[in-house]
Parts: sequence; structure tokens; C-alpha cells
Amino acid sequence: MRLATVITAAHDAEGPATRAAVQVGDRFVLLAAQDLSELLGSAGWREQAAAAVAAAEVAGSAGDAVRADTIPADAVRFATVLPRPSKVICCGLNYADHIAEMGRELPEYPTLFAKYADTLIGDGEVIDAAGHGAKLDWEAELAVVVGAPLRNASVEEASAAIAGYTVANDISMRDWQNRTLQWFQGKAFDRTTPLGPVLVTADECDPQAGVRVRCLVNGAEVQNGNTKTLVFTAAALLSYISTFTRLSPGDVVLTGTPGGVGMGATPPRFLHDGDVVTTEIEGIGTLTNTVRL
Amino acid sequence: MRLATVITAAHDAEGPATRAAVQVGDRFVLLAAQDLSELLGSAGWREQAAAAVAAAEVAGSAGDAVRADTIPADAVRFATVLPRPSKVICCGLNYADHIAEMGRELPEYPTLFAKYADTLIGDGEVIDAAGHGAKLDWEAELAVVVGAPLRNASVEEASAAIAGYTVANDISMRDWQNRTLQWFQGKAFDRTTPLGPVLVTADECDPQAGVRVRCLVNGAEVQNGNTKTLVFTAAALLSYISTFTRLSPGDVVLTGTPGGVGMGATPPRFLHDGDVVTTEIEGIGTLTNTVRL
Repeated sequence: MRLATVITAAHDAEGPATRAAVQVGDRFVLLAAQDLSELLGSAGWREQAAAAVAAAEVAGSAGDAVRADTIPADAVRFATVLPRPSKVICCGLNYADHIAEMGRELPEYPTLFAKYADTLIGDGEVIDAAGHGAKLDWEAELAVVVGAPLRNASVEEASAAIAGYTVANDISMRDWQNRTLQWFQGKAFDRTTPLGPVLVTADECDPQAGVRVRCLVNGAEVQNGNTKTLVFTAAALLSYISTFTRLSPGDVVLTGTPGGVGMGATPPRFLHDGDVVTTEIEGIGTLTNTVRL
Repeated sequence: MRLATVITAAHDAEGPATRAAVQVGDRFVLLAAQDLSELLGSAGWREQAAAAVAAAEVAGSAGDAVRADTIPADAVRFATVLPRPSKVICCGLNYADHIAEMGRELPEYPTLFAKYADTLIGDGEVIDAAGHGAKLDWEAELAVVVGAPLRNASVEEASAAIAGYTVANDISMRDWQNRTLQWFQGKAFDRTTPLGPVLVTADECDPQAGVRVRCLVNGAEVQNGNTKTLVFTAAALLSYISTFTRLSPGDVVLTGTPGGVGMGATPPRFLHDGDVVTTEIEGIGTLTNTVRL
């Protein structure tokens, strides 16, 4: 299934009105939950979504008119796919080919750091770093979404608890990131981490078999990696993290970025005001976000 | 004022029943809010608490019997003082005397990393690292608590938004902390960061003038620092953090630890199963927590 959080009405003081939705052919069928954070937190979310798909398919084959609670896929506007994860944990260097090209050894343990949900934005939203004069860089990443509570989970248990996958860009302020030894402050700017547009459930996406992860800046490709070279798989990361902290449905883990970031170019290259960042994962979807600096 | 989250009934599946409370002489007067996270999130929390103090003092001077909604201070049991902060952000090396004794230069920027609320425990609770065989170390710290929303705040604005101060111990798994360049995984074990026992409002505690921060292990002093040597004051840290992320009432910032951690001893010294860690800040209070390893 392809799940999303879609915008159903304009912004008010609380942000846009949204609903969780599931794609059925060329439409998104609205679900009862306000967003995917709420949907994944409710028991039987897979069955709820599957039932909505089945009902829509029956209605479709019966020739019924398109119902009010659907939005055509070509008119849908996506919100941040998971707007309120309790934890967003990121993995550093995790692509074997990128590590090899940097001349480093494969790591024994994943390098982890935390983000807060306030960093997240949706497809089409502005990456807002105005006023900081920051050195903004891109990091296209596969994000894995937790679908069931996890604590001290084996890799097999973690694998079974994966809700699915989505696209992220761990936009990084390299100057802030390198002010101190800890990367957090360069990764934690509010409203700078695009996430979405949809969550593809685990039965329809297999990163270990390999999916392509790309980043383009103003249409020119800057990153092109493949998840089959991940050192720590999505399930391995969830298992490792669950050793020290519980993970809850809707939590998000970013699995690291392939080679091609701007900081690694000669000379280093950073984003400018107005640049368009496109983040694309094969079989999942594309995020398009403009930089404001 | 001295505010706390106190336990009013035994644990059930949701944890213990708690109430926010304010100390009046030798009693804690219960407030309507379930805990200090809820109290600080409500408008006019200072006035609510002050009104409860005034009412209790009037009742006390009138010779009224102790009311049902008070608990004698010598019988009170404290829960985690802020059980649900949306952000817990920690500062690394921040004591000038400790930095000098390590032969380093004073930092230009604070070293920051994040914790999640799941790490927090209250006075008297067990520091639970059972099964990890981890190298557990102590880090007594002054914690500053946010009392009003902050974003892009000046130091003066941040200072005015401080709710108060409490005691923390940023217990660290040094082996996990040093597995990679990022400290997060050594700082993020659930239920290992004591916080409390009370929050002393900013008008009654002045860390810049200097308060003593101590840690004792099994009654023997291992740390003894003074907040007057903090490189980045509490207000400076809140201002800096608010540059990149919003802070909300009830959020907590740990201001760093003075010299004397176990990792710095020759040879390094770590905590054992059953060790009692006492964390004490002058004018605020004392946390007593036993280690389970």
C-alpha cells in the first residue's frame, strides 16, 4: 500500500487540515485518522487501510461515481508524511561504496544522532534557513518507519515491525555541524528536513534487494546511490536502537546518505537561496523543496 | 517557589498517579495539573502556583487542620520532576575550571546533543542499565527548565523565559558513547537520567552568582563544581538553541558537568550494580538513585 498524509483544507493557526489516506489507482482515499502519525498509532492500521482499499475497489468496479472522500492523485497535496514522530533518529555514514571511496573501513557500529519532529516538512514546502547565512548541504536518505512497539528487538522482530519506507533529505548546516564535535546543532534546524511524499508499506519495497536513492539540485543529479550497499539495514538499525530506547509506531529512522554531498565536492558546494532540491527514491516517490536562505 | 511532581497513588500500567505540587513550609500543596509538564504548559502557571501558596498560608495562619490536598514534606515521594518534556538538550564541556584543567581552550560555541524524555527517571528510581554490561559514568548537572515559548530569543528574552532550575545526572554509557563519533547512543538509554527532585523558580536560584554542584558515589564525593564557572550560562544556552529550534514550556536543557567524572580518573572508574549515586545542587535538592547493571 501507498499511504500519505494529505492536505484537505488551507492553513489556519494550527497548520493545514490533513487526513491520512491510501492510494487506490489514480485516487487517494481518505481514512478516519488525521495523519499517518495517528493512523500508525492505532491498532490494526494495516487492516483499516486495506479495508478502505478493498471498499474503494468494489465501488470502482461497480461504476460508482468518485466519492467525496477521495482526491485524484494528480490533484493531491501532501503534508509531512509523519508529522509527529516521537523519535527521529539518524544514521551517519552507512553506504559501503561511499565509505570505500572515502578510504575508510566499514564501521562496527552505526553512528547515530537525534532530530526532533519540528525539523520535518512535507513535499513542496520551503527548506527554511533564512537569516542564518548557513552552509546548507543535501543528504538524500531512505527513511524507515516503525509500525509496532520495539524494545530489545532482534533483527527479525525489527524487520516484522517495519511499517514501510519513505523519502527524506537530512539537509545539514555544515558550518553549524562543524562548530563542535557533535553534529546535532547542524541537523536540528526547525522546518529543514523534507519527509514524504508517501509511505510505501514494507511488503511493496525491499531496500535490501536495492532501490535507487537520488538527489538533484536545480535538476542536475548530485547523488545516485543504491540501498543494497547499506552497511546497516533498516531492520538492523531498528534492532540496534531498540537496545537502548523504545521505538513506537510512527517513529522514523533515517538510514544515511550515499556519496555526492556538497561538502565532499572540490571545492565544497552549498545550496543557495531559491535552489530546488529534488529527492527521489525508486518505487517510493519524489520530494521537491525550494531553499530559502 | 519550589515546585514538584509528586506521587499520589501506586503504579498501575500507566505508571504512578501524580500531581503537580508547590512547597509551603513543611508541606507540598497539590495543584490541579497532573505534573509539572502539564502545569508549565498552561497559561499563568506562576500565578496558579502562587495563589495556591497564598491560600495555604492563609489557611495555615488561621489554624485550619492540614487539608487533604497536601502532603507533609517528610512523607512526599517525588516523580520525575518534568516527565514529558518535548525536548531535552544537553551541553557538553561547559565548566571553565574543568576545561582549563584538561588543558583545552574555552569553546566558542556550545557542544550540544539531544536526549529523549524516555531517558528520564525521578528521585529514588533505579538507573536501569541491566543486561548491557555498560561502562556507566556519572555527570552531575544543573538543568534549566523553559517557562515560556522561545524562538530566536536574545539572551535577555531567554533569561526572562526561564521557569527555574532542577538537578540532573546525565548518566553516560562510556563504551556506547565512544563506539562512534556521536555521543547520542551512550546518552540515550531509557530510564537512566535522574531529574528532580524539585524545580526551584528562577527568582530563588541564581546559578551565575554560583551554586555548588556535587556528585557522590556510595557517599564519597566524586564531583564538586560551581555554576559560576559555566562558560555558557543557562540563558545563553536557551538563546543559542532557540536560534535553530523552538523551545516550549517544560523543555529541559542540561548545562554540562564539572570535573571529576569516572572516565577522567586514572585508571578510569565506572559504576557497579548496587552503587548509590547522589546528585546534589545547593539550594535545589538531592537525587538519590541506585544503579542496576
